[in-house]
Amino acid sequence: MEIFDFAPRPDQFAYTFGGVAPVAAIEPGTALRLWSEDAFNNAITSRSDVPSAQLDPHRLNPQTGPFYLNGAEPGDTLAIHIVDLTPARSWGASATIPFFGGLTATDRTSLLHDALPEAVWIYDIDTAAQTVGFQTRAGDFELALPLEPMLGTVGVAPAGGEAHSSLTPERFGGNMDTPEMRVGSTAYFGVNVEGALFSIGDGHYRQGEGEACGTAVEGAMNSTIIVDLIKGGAPLWPRLESDEHWMVVGSSRPMEDSWRISQVEMIRWLSELFGLDSMDAYQLLTQIALVPVANVVDTNYSVMTKVAKSLLPSAAAFDGIHADLRRRARELR
Amino acid sequence: MEIFDFAPRPDQFAYTFGGVAPVAAIEPGTALRLWSEDAFNNAITSRSDVPSAQLDPHRLNPQTGPFYLNGAEPGDTLAIHIVDLTPARSWGASATIPFFGGLTATDRTSLLHDALPEAVWIYDIDTAAQTVGFQTRAGDFELALPLEPMLGTVGVAPAGGEAHSSLTPERFGGNMDTPEMRVGSTAYFGVNVEGALFSIGDGHYRQGEGEACGTAVEGAMNSTIIVDLIKGGAPLWPRLESDEHWMVVGSSRPMEDSWRISQVEMIRWLSELFGLDSMDAYQLLTQIALVPVANVVDTNYSVMTKVAKSLLPSAAAFDGIHADLRRRARELR
Amino acid sequence: MEIFDFAPRPDQFAYTFGGVAPVAAIEPGTALRLWSEDAFNNAITSRSDVPSAQLDPHRLNPQTGPFYLNGAEPGDTLAIHIVDLTPARSWGASATIPFFGGLTATDRTSLLHDALPEAVWIYDIDTAAQTVGFQTRAGDFELALPLEPMLGTVGVAPAGGEAHSSLTPERFGGNMDTPEMRVGSTAYFGVNVEGALFSIGDGHYRQGEGEACGTAVEGAMNSTIIVDLIKGGAPLWPRLESDEHWMVVGSSRPMEDSWRISQVEMIRWLSELFGLDSMDAYQLLTQIALVPVANVVDTNYSVMTKVAKSLLPSAAAFDGIHADLRRRARELR
Amino acid sequence: MEIFDFAPRPDQFAYTFGGVAPVAAIEPGTALRLWSEDAFNNAITSRSDVPSAQLDPHRLNPQTGPFYLNGAEPGDTLAIHIVDLTPARSWGASATIPFFGGLTATDRTSLLHDALPEAVWIYDIDTAAQTVGFQTRAGDFELALPLEPMLGTVGVAPAGGEAHSSLTPERFGGNMDTPEMRVGSTAYFGVNVEGALFSIGDGHYRQGEGEACGTAVEGAMNSTIIVDLIKGGAPLWPRLESDEHWMVVGSSRPMEDSWRISQVEMIRWLSELFGLDSMDAYQLLTQIALVPVANVVDTNYSVMTKVAKSLLPSAAAFDGIHADLRRRARELR
Repeated sequence: MEIFDFAPRPDQFAYTFGGVAPVAAIEPGTALRLWSEDAFNNAITSRSDVPSAQLDPHRLNPQTGPFYLNGAEPGDTLAIHIVDLTPARSWGASATIPFFGGLTATDRTSLLHDALPEAVWIYDIDTAAQTVGFQTRAGDFELALPLEPMLGTVGVAPAGGEAHSSLTPERFGGNMDTPEMRVGSTAYFGVNVEGALFSIGDGHYRQGEGEACGTAVEGAMNSTIIVDLIKGGAPLWPRLESDEHWMVVGSSRPMEDSWRISQVEMIRWLSELFGLDSMDAYQLLTQIALVPVANVVDTNYSVMTKVAKSLLPSAAAFDGIHADLRRRARELR
Repeated sequence: MEIFDFAPRPDQFAYTFGGVAPVAAIEPGTALRLWSEDAFNNAITSRSDVPSAQLDPHRLNPQTGPFYLNGAEPGDTLAIHIVDLTPARSWGASATIPFFGGLTATDRTSLLHDALPEAVWIYDIDTAAQTVGFQTRAGDFELALPLEPMLGTVGVAPAGGEAHSSLTPERFGGNMDTPEMRVGSTAYFGVNVEGALFSIGDGHYRQGEGEACGTAVEGAMNSTIIVDLIKGGAPLWPRLESDEHWMVVGSSRPMEDSWRISQVEMIRWLSELFGLDSMDAYQLLTQIALVPVANVVDTNYSVMTKVAKSLLPSAAAFDGIHADLRRRARELR
Repeated sequence: MEIFDFAPRPDQFAYTFGGVAPVAAIEPGTALRLWSEDAFNNAITSRSDVPSAQLDPHRLNPQTGPFYLNGAEPGDTLAIHIVDLTPARSWGASATIPFFGGLTATDRTSLLHDALPEAVWIYDIDTAAQTVGFQTRAGDFELALPLEPMLGTVGVAPAGGEAHSSLTPERFGGNMDTPEMRVGSTAYFGVNVEGALFSIGDGHYRQGEGEACGTAVEGAMNSTIIVDLIKGGAPLWPRLESDEHWMVVGSSRPMEDSWRISQVEMIRWLSELFGLDSMDAYQLLTQIALVPVANVVDTNYSVMTKVAKSLLPSAAAFDGIHADLRRRARELR
Repeated sequence: MEIFDFAPRPDQFAYTFGGVAPVAAIEPGTALRLWSEDAFNNAITSRSDVPSAQLDPHRLNPQTGPFYLNGAEPGDTLAIHIVDLTPARSWGASATIPFFGGLTATDRTSLLHDALPEAVWIYDIDTAAQTVGFQTRAGDFELALPLEPMLGTVGVAPAGGEAHSSLTPERFGGNMDTPEMRVGSTAYFGVNVEGALFSIGDGHYRQGEGEACGTAVEGAMNSTIIVDLIKGGAPLWPRLESDEHWMVVGSSRPMEDSWRISQVEMIRWLSELFGLDSMDAYQLLTQIALVPVANVVDTNYSVMTKVAKSLLPSAAAFDGIHADLRRRARELR
């Protein structure tokens, strides 16, 4: 398998999906070993940092990419399989940022309150134990939480000449912030432009569902992914597949619309996989769906619909590419 | 332990929380063995039934209760521990009902579409295998899904002289439709009126998160619960506890508000349990929350925030009553 | 015309729609001269008052009624025509109340902020000029604003044995807080229970659209209304008619659902009045609708859809009862 | 006054705000006489047209521009005064388009319904009467409605390297679809990039508030505008000023967030204009706001907050530029 290594210089960071020239062209089937900067652009390194003073609002969530996938055309499907995610630093950071997050007034939920206190939490990684350490700022409560690396942001260039901030989750993927974007998952995106122009970033060493305060345990990440191309078959919204689950992510506002999107697209997927009428798929989904919220803090909210493969007959999506990618991933190690 | 058996006659069914006289008075610590009718009021029994013709809109989701808990006063906490849930029929039913459900125009999301097709699905229980059988209406796809009984509706009378339909989930509990209302869970409700006036119903033999089409595998249920009273300590919104999780359910619209409610109340609970400052609890919750959606179909949407006890130091809520109820439940078997 | 005078004693105030016994029975066609207490229950009388200390949360928005309308049955239409609204005090009051209002965290939009400052503004009425006086609390800015009396709350008992707080706007009317509930308007409500059980209250000496801080210029009110009964024809949601406009109020959450309700119901009304196909009525409404927001602060948000009669052929709703009520109102003066 | 005439060729149409090179550079104070194509890109010309067959989804809402305003820098304020709007054709068109509009399932409010019927309505202009003619498709109902030209879309390039579809209303303006963007209004936009890069389009010969079906009476337009630059003072969201009103437009989802944005920004404006404390401005706005909904159909919903100048002391925003532009506009005629 061809392997492509890439660590962007800061001047190569991408801050939008769309509107950015590719950093490299890649053949389908290539494995990429990519380094990505953290979502704070490394501006938060100590619990005494003051986010509003140190963060550059136009330099948040830098992406590694975009990459031009040779042969990818609008209507095709990009498959990104996550082989490995390894923290690139020995610590991660989280912060509350004025008027950003889920339990505060924001620029959208615009209210007359003063900002909540801004603060930083630093999480040290214990590599042996595979944990990240939480410490309260007030008092001396400490916890070791499991290290569970994931990518907050993976996506392609949008259609129609649009360019969206890397803080946005949308139909093109982007900042979905789902913990399911983890090792062993394959993500499928509809291709909107020649070359797909995908990028990744926003490594999280750990994140709860919803990402309440707006920032996970953010950290630079070394990611190994295999990228492949399926001609045609573009899903309307990002789909994910693991050995255990079929998954769809919807991203919009209000949150019930994110949910509706993910449900209707899953009904479509179940209908395709099992030859079901849509009303039957609606009924079945009603009784088997898992619905973990992904984020309630970004410019769009993301909700996942997830179905356990164990409840269903075996089936192969996109000609069984996930199983094949799993096999290829094992070869890489 | 005192045991109280009760199966209401149809004329004793309650269709609201509040505004209904109690069917019995109960001492704290009593075990109740209750039968409840299904949410369709037994009007749907065959796949050839036509919901809009057979359902009586004012006779939906009949509750068993309300019960007057001796000594319960506003500001107290009612604990309901679920000891056993056993289907009272050999089959359950689900249906699509015109302008009801999550992926259809409704009386709220009022649009110009005609109704989706109405239809019934009957699920036979295989007691040996502990499954319910799904069959498509179109084609001959069949699945055996695990039987996972739960109560869609548990709650108390609301405050302020209000009476709400048993189809509504709110601060007083009610039709929250969370799969976590299962055997082994203890639910805590703030008491609003003398005697609490709690009732239960809406047995589900199985339900996916979100209850997309509006109806789970609905069925009459035999429920064994132990009811207890904690003086004071009323939570603002329903809390649940199992051996594995701390949980809060928020119910409102839009769905982000349901989420916000459940998150803020969980931050309050974590602060109480572990002596955390609220910003520290906000940070911690951000990294450990699980957020399964409960329902997106009722008059309010319900979202759960859930935290694994295994990630946290051991702690006892309400003086450790859950562990005690678990012990008492074992005595009952 | 029969005239019925009524000023409730405090122990006769109603705090819910539904769940309250009628204070009197009324014949259709009766004129009622009613006094109503202000929404604060007269607990706010000076700018030094502290709302959270003085307001009783279970004694807010007291209603005058309910009245039993002889002959009214479910499915009928209640018409309430507003003949006169005269302030019953020489001053009105407005206040910011902790966690209540449109630009603050609330019990629904539950956030981690402290409450906004609570404060009271007193508005003196200048009867000659027909104005209310606004004075800032900080600095010495003063304005005389037109006195424009209206009723924030008018409604009937809900269906299904429900009882809702008088703070709630819903299908049954209630706390819609629309400035169009003014002299010269006729409001139509579907009757849900025998006798309709209507009540009125929440006098506003003036209110902007949206009622941003949650309270208008609140004041005790002397209202003269004529009440009549139309057999059948119950509208799904409250409709209003003035000499100038056809109007519908939708109340739900999120606000787009309130809008959808009011639009679909107006399409239905235009179709009835002018014999239009629903797609044609949709098209026409698109080009002629006025859409003033009513409230974004109550337990449901209210949005009005309004159409100028001057743009349309003349038409008579409910057999032209509005014109007739206007005529009868003139006789009363 | 310098006058700049421009009618773009189809290959010069802009379909995004941001991401497009300017068609011309303009000095502050210039009057522009601009032709703009209709939002359908002239693909709908007869009532027998089928929108889904004839519309190119990537060629909707073509904009005239962008123009580079010499000297404009981020943080500055662009003032656009509308001097004249004259229909450039003798007829306008409106249409229902599958899964687009306010009373239908959409790609966001994703449901399982089939699309509503698609259809076209053609409105002939009667120049003498200054009306547009509505005709039903079913039956023979006809109405002459006042011609009330406005621009649905006016805006500048967004910040952060983003490019948004011309169908989107946002902080940068864009497709706000407010009937207040009419002759005599001055619109103020915060400048995000060098040269501001503003464009206009989406002429409406008439539109109701909310634009329910998603399309107004769409038509090519001849617009005369005067463009000026105010150094600094960038408003956070688009502000409008007419001789009669101060106005702010908020655009987001759900609709209550659009409202909150417009209210908080108006509180800020009132505080600036009259030296008010923000809680006093909140109170005052509560009693005087007008809140017409602008659109509930675009990728974001737009809500306006509007205050009558007649209720307030006289005041000058941006050094009284509106009055000056009115004077300059008269010179042009």
